[in-house]
Amino acid sequence: MENPYNVGLDRNPANFQPLTPLGFLARNAANYPDAIAIIHGNIRVNYQTFYDRSRQLASQLANLGLGRGDTVSALLANTPAMLECHYGVPMAGAVLHSVNTRLEAATIAYQLAHAQAKVLIVDREFLSVAQAALAVADVSPLVIVYHDSEWTELSSVDTDDHYQDYDEFVAQGDRAFSWLMPEDEWDAISINYTSGTTGNPKGVVCHHRGAYLLALGNVFTADMPKYSTYLWTLPMFHCNGWCFPWTLSAICGTHVCLRQVRKEPIWLALHKHKVTHLCGAPIVMDIILSAENQTLTNKVAFFTAAAPPPERTLAQMQEAGFEVTHLYGLAEVYGPAVVNEWHQEWNLLPIEEQAKLKARQGVKYLPLENLDVLDPETMSAVPADGKTLGEVMFQGNVVMKGYFKNPTATQSAFEGGWFHSGDLAVKHPDGYIQLKDRSKDIIISGGENISSIEIEDVLYKHPAVAVTAVVSCPDEKWGEVPFAFVECCEGKTVSEQELKTWCGQHMAGFKVPKHFSFTPIPRTPTGKIQKFQLREQVSARLQSEESGSPKS
Amino acid sequence: MENPYNVGLDRNPANFQPLTPLGFLARNAANYPDAIAIIHGNIRVNYQTFYDRSRQLASQLANLGLGRGDTVSALLANTPAMLECHYGVPMAGAVLHSVNTRLEAATIAYQLAHAQAKVLIVDREFLSVAQAALAVADVSPLVIVYHDSEWTELSSVDTDDHYQDYDEFVAQGDRAFSWLMPEDEWDAISINYTSGTTGNPKGVVCHHRGAYLLALGNVFTADMPKYSTYLWTLPMFHCNGWCFPWTLSAICGTHVCLRQVRKEPIWLALHKHKVTHLCGAPIVMDIILSAENQTLTNKVAFFTAAAPPPERTLAQMQEAGFEVTHLYGLAEVYGPAVVNEWHQEWNLLPIEEQAKLKARQGVKYLPLENLDVLDPETMSAVPADGKTLGEVMFQGNVVMKGYFKNPTATQSAFEGGWFHSGDLAVKHPDGYIQLKDRSKDIIISGGENISSIEIEDVLYKHPAVAVTAVVSCPDEKWGEVPFAFVECCEGKTVSEQELKTWCGQHMAGFKVPKHFSFTPIPRTPTGKIQKFQLREQVSARLQSEESGSPKS
Repeated sequence: MENPYNVGLDRNPANFQPLTPLGFLARNAANYPDAIAIIHGNIRVNYQTFYDRSRQLASQLANLGLGRGDTVSALLANTPAMLECHYGVPMAGAVLHSVNTRLEAATIAYQLAHAQAKVLIVDREFLSVAQAALAVADVSPLVIVYHDSEWTELSSVDTDDHYQDYDEFVAQGDRAFSWLMPEDEWDAISINYTSGTTGNPKGVVCHHRGAYLLALGNVFTADMPKYSTYLWTLPMFHCNGWCFPWTLSAICGTHVCLRQVRKEPIWLALHKHKVTHLCGAPIVMDIILSAENQTLTNKVAFFTAAAPPPERTLAQMQEAGFEVTHLYGLAEVYGPAVVNEWHQEWNLLPIEEQAKLKARQGVKYLPLENLDVLDPETMSAVPADGKTLGEVMFQGNVVMKGYFKNPTATQSAFEGGWFHSGDLAVKHPDGYIQLKDRSKDIIISGGENISSIEIEDVLYKHPAVAVTAVVSCPDEKWGEVPFAFVECCEGKTVSEQELKTWCGQHMAGFKVPKHFSFTPIPRTPTGKIQKFQLREQVSARLQSEESGSPKS
Repeated sequence: MENPYNVGLDRNPANFQPLTPLGFLARNAANYPDAIAIIHGNIRVNYQTFYDRSRQLASQLANLGLGRGDTVSALLANTPAMLECHYGVPMAGAVLHSVNTRLEAATIAYQLAHAQAKVLIVDREFLSVAQAALAVADVSPLVIVYHDSEWTELSSVDTDDHYQDYDEFVAQGDRAFSWLMPEDEWDAISINYTSGTTGNPKGVVCHHRGAYLLALGNVFTADMPKYSTYLWTLPMFHCNGWCFPWTLSAICGTHVCLRQVRKEPIWLALHKHKVTHLCGAPIVMDIILSAENQTLTNKVAFFTAAAPPPERTLAQMQEAGFEVTHLYGLAEVYGPAVVNEWHQEWNLLPIEEQAKLKARQGVKYLPLENLDVLDPETMSAVPADGKTLGEVMFQGNVVMKGYFKNPTATQSAFEGGWFHSGDLAVKHPDGYIQLKDRSKDIIISGGENISSIEIEDVLYKHPAVAVTAVVSCPDEKWGEVPFAFVECCEGKTVSEQELKTWCGQHMAGFKVPKHFSFTPIPRTPTGKIQKFQLREQVSARLQSEESGSPKS
């Protein structure tokens, strides 16, 4: 029998509209036109102006003939222009491609061409690298240059008169432009390229539905009340600033822009604007803590991701008055989709216990439907024993549409109806997951899995070790053995033998690295260690050893 | 050219799941199993148990053969059982039909039959009316009786041994039951019958998508932080308690149940459980204020709807320490979907100015896409002049699927792509809407629209008037004229002439009621005045006058 609740009760425009975060901005402009949306140096932008300018930008993009499915690239610092792009570009129906401002020209060129950029909005600071990129890119977007009055450094380019000026471009737009709702909430809102730690940057396509849901999800995770003040220590180009450009509109909050993550402007903003929330990698906490004699006058919540917050940093942040929450995610899940939900009673534990608990990645975000650690072979969940390794997988509405123009990668990422993160983890008895490694970085030695992170953790505790990375090295006897790369702290040295002894005291013998190298460790422009390059170094070294050395 | 962002980037189980509020409960059980979900008298239920019992209930309904599209009716007070029904029933795929516990047997019988109830879960207190309803209903649901240990009144029924006991029924269920996700987020989650002020109760069908979004929307409107404590002064049968049964799970909050809205248990709960949020009609505020020498020790937010909060009540509530917010909505929009967003600077105004601003219904909820006041003839927006009357219309994802088995009413409600509320309002220059009347209640006199609410407002200010209702009365000269029904305050009287003089001093002459009646005013079981009955009384009186009196 037909379900009677489905008879004659279909979707229609009165009861069904596509979900999109764009409406949050319109709502604030209507209800709170005078509320401060953006602070940038001496600039104050209220919600009416923020909305007006976003619509003007959208109307101008439409005037250029851009519309649904067209890409607008933005190579911008954390400025009002970047916030406007997060609304104005999708309001024209177009897709926002935020470019990492630390990338080298060749990678930017690759992204612009792959994303088929029609327009490139670039901050004056990054014009020279943009020009270098455009010189070799297989695409010729219209270039619009943003002159940020708060950027006072000397230009490295002599003239840019022949480019369209961003503010003039926007000013010519139509404040009353009827911006485009997505035709379907599944329409793309953004594309972000993976950082290429595995050597193969992919274009992660996100949709309006997911952006709406994760933007709201941030409010629940960060417990953000109305009118919160958010400091932009996280780059907005990074997974669209974890969707916070949209989150703030949901709560009528204030963005405090920041071009550079330095301790003076951060502390100035914390005090002057009574910042309530900010995000960043652990390095941002180090920068904050490097300032002397600074304490907070109000409660500030700090959200960190990329790596577990080290115990010492955590203790110092608490002392300075910050509440630190550990998040985890990746571009494919709109930024963070896992949160180390903190239980109040854990505050009573010794700080080293707290650090251990806080090192765990945690549990799913509110708008994520399923998070689990699965055996990728059988697709069954690993036991929640805190020991058995599996792959972190996601299922839900804050998972990307897929990889742009890459059906093979898309299909393999979604195999078995779950998004495969490539990260290896365990699940603790209380359901909290903890990362152990990237699946590519696991070392299988004599049939035993060895986590490179576990070895790195031990090495990091040695007083002479500044940076380390462990990769697998082919071995005739064991199949694979750990190979450790180490950079020493300034003014310190340590021998291979010393480190082997150190490791032997802190881990099972089969896990101790068999080889060490004290050469510089290659990183991506965002600072991520490029293990694939280390593996190539290992291969090259092995070949050279096999063929006898010295070569030639 | 095809949009490249739609190529090979389709929905799949990894990136698309139906939205439903049911997952919020599962998430809390996983992350916060020991957190207190429900307080009811001396009973404490943690999230693990709440989730377990909801799954047990679902499994038992499934064991009875119930599934997608089947209706489970609940005639329950604000108890743990009612909260369990909000999860357990849809977890079986079924649709929850919450019945107003103040209804008379005939109306309950009508609803049970129309909704095709398969199961009726009834509180012991309402068993006798349920039995009376079942005696005349065209349907024979399985009856399950809930014996609430907190209900200590004497039973009006001798025996109920032959009915299934609710707690036994649940206890036999399976804690590990794999509850059903909706097949589609458009699937029905609940049906609620309109109260019949217009004489024609309709079954409002709501879906999982809307319940998810309004449940989250409440958090934004009420600015509810994690772990908030919510007191159930609002009946859960009323639009599913405005979706708050689901909202609390989104923030891992605590429900404080309340069988009866009396001042003693309310103040006990406010103090003992440090309640942070509660909702109710203005009458609930009067009950709260009727307690002597009570003040709050923590901030409490009160959300009121159904009628604007009167100035005196508002002042007293502020004095007692409550923050009062005015909401507006109707069953067709899941409860409240409009909020009188309060601007901080308004707190500096005199209390009578504040009351005037607070009397306005306000602006749309965050998850509502569009709210406007339209001319129903032309479907164009009225000017935002605070004067021009139009009909309040809604467009968005928190609008019902439609009316159950009533395609005519559904079609007319959604005419022109907007949901027609039937409420008449003006739009102020700042975009806030203010109700003036139900469209059926407007009086057109000499071509001029007269708002019955405006006249009632004036009459309410007269010290002798306790309750009043104004309806239109056919008139040979003017077409229609206002007819006022008045109930006097206890121990007071007032003459027709006095009230006419009073009105004449406070409104234009053409608006002064031509006729008065001092007879009791009929109300629905929820206390809503039944104007259609008053109109019938007016017609009957006119006919009797035309045919000469006394009759027969």
